[in-house]
Amino acid sequence: MKLYEKLAADIAALVQQGVLLPGERIPSVRQTSQHHRLSTTTVVRAYVLLESRGVIESRPQSGYFVRARPGESAIELRPSRPSPKPSAVDVSALVLSTLRSIRSGEAIPLGSPYPDSSLFPWQRISQYAANIARRYANWNVLDDLPPGSPDLIRQISRRYLENGYAIDPNEVIVTIGATEAINLCLQAVAKPGDTIAVESPTYYAMLHAIERLGMRVIEVATDPVEGIDIDALARLIDEKGIAACMVMPNFQNPLGFQMSDEKKRKLVALLTEKNIPVIENDVYGELYYGDAHPSSLKAYDTAGIVLHCASFSKTLTNAYRIGWALPGRYHGQVERLKFLNTLTTATIPQRAIAEFLKNDGYDFHLRRVRKAYAQQANIMVAAVRRFFPKGTTTSRPAGGYVLWVQLPEGVDAMELYHAALERRITVAPGHMFAPGFTYGHCIRLNYSADWSPEIEAAVQTLGKLAESLLARSRRGARQDDARP
Amino acid sequence: MKLYEKLAADIAALVQQGVLLPGERIPSVRQTSQHHRLSTTTVVRAYVLLESRGVIESRPQSGYFVRARPGESAIELRPSRPSPKPSAVDVSALVLSTLRSIRSGEAIPLGSPYPDSSLFPWQRISQYAANIARRYANWNVLDDLPPGSPDLIRQISRRYLENGYAIDPNEVIVTIGATEAINLCLQAVAKPGDTIAVESPTYYAMLHAIERLGMRVIEVATDPVEGIDIDALARLIDEKGIAACMVMPNFQNPLGFQMSDEKKRKLVALLTEKNIPVIENDVYGELYYGDAHPSSLKAYDTAGIVLHCASFSKTLTNAYRIGWALPGRYHGQVERLKFLNTLTTATIPQRAIAEFLKNDGYDFHLRRVRKAYAQQANIMVAAVRRFFPKGTTTSRPAGGYVLWVQLPEGVDAMELYHAALERRITVAPGHMFAPGFTYGHCIRLNYSADWSPEIEAAVQTLGKLAESLLARSRRGARQDDARP
Repeated sequence: MKLYEKLAADIAALVQQGVLLPGERIPSVRQTSQHHRLSTTTVVRAYVLLESRGVIESRPQSGYFVRARPGESAIELRPSRPSPKPSAVDVSALVLSTLRSIRSGEAIPLGSPYPDSSLFPWQRISQYAANIARRYANWNVLDDLPPGSPDLIRQISRRYLENGYAIDPNEVIVTIGATEAINLCLQAVAKPGDTIAVESPTYYAMLHAIERLGMRVIEVATDPVEGIDIDALARLIDEKGIAACMVMPNFQNPLGFQMSDEKKRKLVALLTEKNIPVIENDVYGELYYGDAHPSSLKAYDTAGIVLHCASFSKTLTNAYRIGWALPGRYHGQVERLKFLNTLTTATIPQRAIAEFLKNDGYDFHLRRVRKAYAQQANIMVAAVRRFFPKGTTTSRPAGGYVLWVQLPEGVDAMELYHAALERRITVAPGHMFAPGFTYGHCIRLNYSADWSPEIEAAVQTLGKLAESLLARSRRGARQDDARP
Repeated sequence: MKLYEKLAADIAALVQQGVLLPGERIPSVRQTSQHHRLSTTTVVRAYVLLESRGVIESRPQSGYFVRARPGESAIELRPSRPSPKPSAVDVSALVLSTLRSIRSGEAIPLGSPYPDSSLFPWQRISQYAANIARRYANWNVLDDLPPGSPDLIRQISRRYLENGYAIDPNEVIVTIGATEAINLCLQAVAKPGDTIAVESPTYYAMLHAIERLGMRVIEVATDPVEGIDIDALARLIDEKGIAACMVMPNFQNPLGFQMSDEKKRKLVALLTEKNIPVIENDVYGELYYGDAHPSSLKAYDTAGIVLHCASFSKTLTNAYRIGWALPGRYHGQVERLKFLNTLTTATIPQRAIAEFLKNDGYDFHLRRVRKAYAQQANIMVAAVRRFFPKGTTTSRPAGGYVLWVQLPEGVDAMELYHAALERRITVAPGHMFAPGFTYGHCIRLNYSADWSPEIEAAVQTLGKLAESLLARSRRGARQDDARP
């Protein structure tokens, strides 16, 4: 075997063993040459061989990456089949108690909904805040009445333009995170008792808004790769009567899918025809792993029925709680409700973020974050495969920083949650993601933190706990069978 | 006439002409002695003479002050007599458009609801914010889930204790200003369609909360010095059925009165007996002009029916939007609603304020602010008397920084508002303070800014505009009389 063949075989073995993961970058030619004391020619020949065999691929100006293997069924999750009946909602108590358990700084926060903040440019933003306070000693809070700080609104509009979509700055309303945006938008389009269609599973903040406003929820079948089932939605609209729809087309929490442009267009067309407003939660839109910024429903909206909500809490800082809404034809109502709900959004945080967007490398920062999350997603998927019981399936996130894990039948996610908490590990039990506690054998894992031996150990512990819960449940089942 | 008699007569004349105002400090003995080139003995004799005549009074360690003349009827406003019928509410559009007109930095903001921020310790708080961001680069936002930052809650509790009232720290819920606190408390105690009793006139944020939640409002007769008419409230409770009550017992906006302890006790007793929750808006509590911190309804509450709301926006900084609620027996509901409404309150602002309260002279800062506002209240009252048409009456604020001005019949406050706006002066028209636009001949003036020639000129202009509107209205009335 020649030297370059030996090197190629070694690398292929690492990929085989899951040490190098699909999508991960392999060391550069120069690094490998130095590391293995081989000539660069030898390394290049090895890489070309691996490329010809489909193990790795080269990307212009980026280097060599492990290829996603087409034969491998990356996603084994099935589309959801939720109950076709509307129901009242009451998940907030569970969510609040779960989030509280994550508070204590010592637990490994795999159940957290928030990104690890070590990638955030805290100090820059905070410096801006300090400077702003110094400059505007006589600041007039009335300058930031709804719709919000003109500086920030200008920067938000510019950002959309950079991402390929021109919005009207007059449509932007600054809010207290996306949470307030979603609440205001929902109140603007529906009234207590109305039925709201959501993806299944869905992000619990959507359920909270519905719960808070005394509305009812109906879950729509959702494919873990394609997103909401538009035909199923159309049937529900005709049969059940729906006041509004709430979706996350980009990197849905918890499933992580990105709806295709074609499907986004179809969804907007259906809802336009039926004259049903749709609240689009796009807080993860900037955290894509692909080559380009994903489109949004808003981009296909001609009738003003899309109420687009987003925030800086997932991409820049979650210590300031700055979000916004683009409420389409409901702009007037949403602006009025913002004024009634919290009057204004804090001045200094708005301006500090605007300064950062204006002067600093938001794009550069985001590229770093996206790259880290994309790699950590691969590592987390591999770790779950390695450590969790057979029959466990996972999502394949296309963006964001959460993984949806479906455990084999018989493992109760709440039991796993409690057992993990005793070992100072948190997970988000699937119960939080649907009103009927439909996802009792699923958990959501956060992989935003830099991968570490502690996190790996935590995933291993979770796997063992799941194994033992599964074994106990099977013993229970056998005993039931053995009963006379 | 001896030298000291001449000096005494000169000072008495200044008081007579309203140049020196009741409550204002007159120059010290040393200053006067230097200024007038008189011996200190002569000045002391003059002051003693003035004191014996009841023109000035000495206060230990503070100096000499112009006495409030007992013969002078300071408050000529009559108690309100609002309609006894509940009504739907829709004042937010008017309020928002009025506040917007105040935005533009060039107008004299006499219509502003906010304190002039030049007295605020912006820079200190902002330094704390910067330090906190540096220290906690890995901050976990989950540590500040409702009820809020433990540090801030500790400081808020300590502050109540310093003011003579021990609260349970576990009762505190941090909110986005008092606006959110009021909204959450109202949603916790009443439902759409319910009737809520308010003072007449009342602060429009109270009306906004009622409007937003689809409730109805009933106004209760309110005395401009004593506060809400408890007998009238009792009758309305028996006759109309009331779900909750919203009041500002301390330095009510717009009337500025402070309810007596005796009356606070009676009000709580009545509502306890009838089992009706009461939302107490105490945002001005720290801005008293008297000798001691006023009590609150909360202090008399044994049944947990008082939902106490307050904020730092009027006393420390309005750029951070930090308020809180003490919701009594509704604590669980309010905490849940906070979580649903805006999830958390921004971390860094909470901690920056906590640091300021812990390390800096909040009391010292407040003493300076109170003294400034008390003096500016006197000056504003005197200016309105000097410049406004005969028949104009004003409130006599006991705290806070707003004056309620009742114009003679025939002057429409909205017309005055528009005419003033053309001259780059804003006022708050009385229409904003009751659902039925009952106070169409009243305006509210903000005197939080340091008195200046520009402000004096603006009050003079307002007086002239009011005169001309009054003259026009009287001509109109005569023409009507003259018609066949």
